[in-house]
Amino acid sequence: MIEFKFDGNGLIPAIIQDFDTGEVLMMGYMDAEALKRTLKEKKSVFYSRSRKKYWVKGESSGHTQDVLQVLTDCDQDTLLIRVRQKGGACHLGYRSCFVEEVGEKGELRRITQEKVFNPESVYPK
Amino acid sequence: MIEFKFDGNGLIPAIIQDFDTGEVLMMGYMDAEALKRTLKEKKSVFYSRSRKKYWVKGESSGHTQDVLQVLTDCDQDTLLIRVRQKGGACHLGYRSCFVEEVGEKGELRRITQEKVFNPESVYPK
Repeated sequence: MIEFKFDGNGLIPAIIQDFDTGEVLMMGYMDAEALKRTLKEKKSVFYSRSRKKYWVKGESSGHTQDVLQVLTDCDQDTLLIRVRQKGGACHLGYRSCFVEEVGEKGELRRITQEKVFNPESVYPK
Repeated sequence: MIEFKFDGNGLIPAIIQDFDTGEVLMMGYMDAEALKRTLKEKKSVFYSRSRKKYWVKGESSGHTQDVLQVLTDCDQDTLLIRVRQKGGACHLGYRSCFVEEVGEKGELRRITQEKVFNPESVYPK
C-alpha cells in the first residue's frame, strides 16, 4: 500500500484534471476516507475544510466527475486525479476554476474563459 | 490587486503545468515573496517547507521552468502556473512527479513514465 502523507489536518490536496483535454479543473482536499471512497466509487469525493463534511462533487449540481485515473507524486503528498467532468467544475459557471489570469504585479489581468452554465439555475439560493 | 489566500503558514499551493502538452508536472508552495519573484522573474520560485528557504526550480539541475502564464482559482487559494519545463520536473528523473498510478485499494499499480534523465548525473551526492 502507498503511504500517503496527509497533512496536520489529515488532508491531502487533489488536483483534478480533465482526462481528455489535460485542462486543470480544480483542486480539492481529501482525507483517507474520501480518498478510499473516490478509489472505490470512481467519483470524486472531497472533504470540505470550511463545511467540515464530505461532498461528492456534483451531488447537487449534477456536474459529477467520473474518475478514470488516480496518480500520486514522488513525495506521496499530492494526488492528481484524471476525470471526465460533466458540465463545469466551477461553482461560478466556468468549466475550470482557474480562470483568473494574474498580471506581473499580482493584479487580475483578465478572465480567460466564458461560462459554460448559469450558476443561478444550477445552484438555487 | 488579487487578495491571494495564503494558508496559516503563509503559503499557497502552485500546480505546475506544461504549457504545451497540458501535463501536470509537480506541485510546489509559494509565499508572497516567492510569488512576487515568480511573476517578475518569469521562473518558478518556491518556498521549501522542509528546508525553510527559497529555491529557484532548476538552479542546481538546470531544469528550469520558464513561466508563461499564472492563473488563480475562484477562491484565490491555489495557483496554476503554466511553464516550459527544461529536462524533467521530478528529482527522480521523470518528466513529471506524478508517475505512480494508484490502484483501487490504494496500492501502487504501476509507474506510468520512463525516466528522461539520470538523477545521479544531475544531482551529484
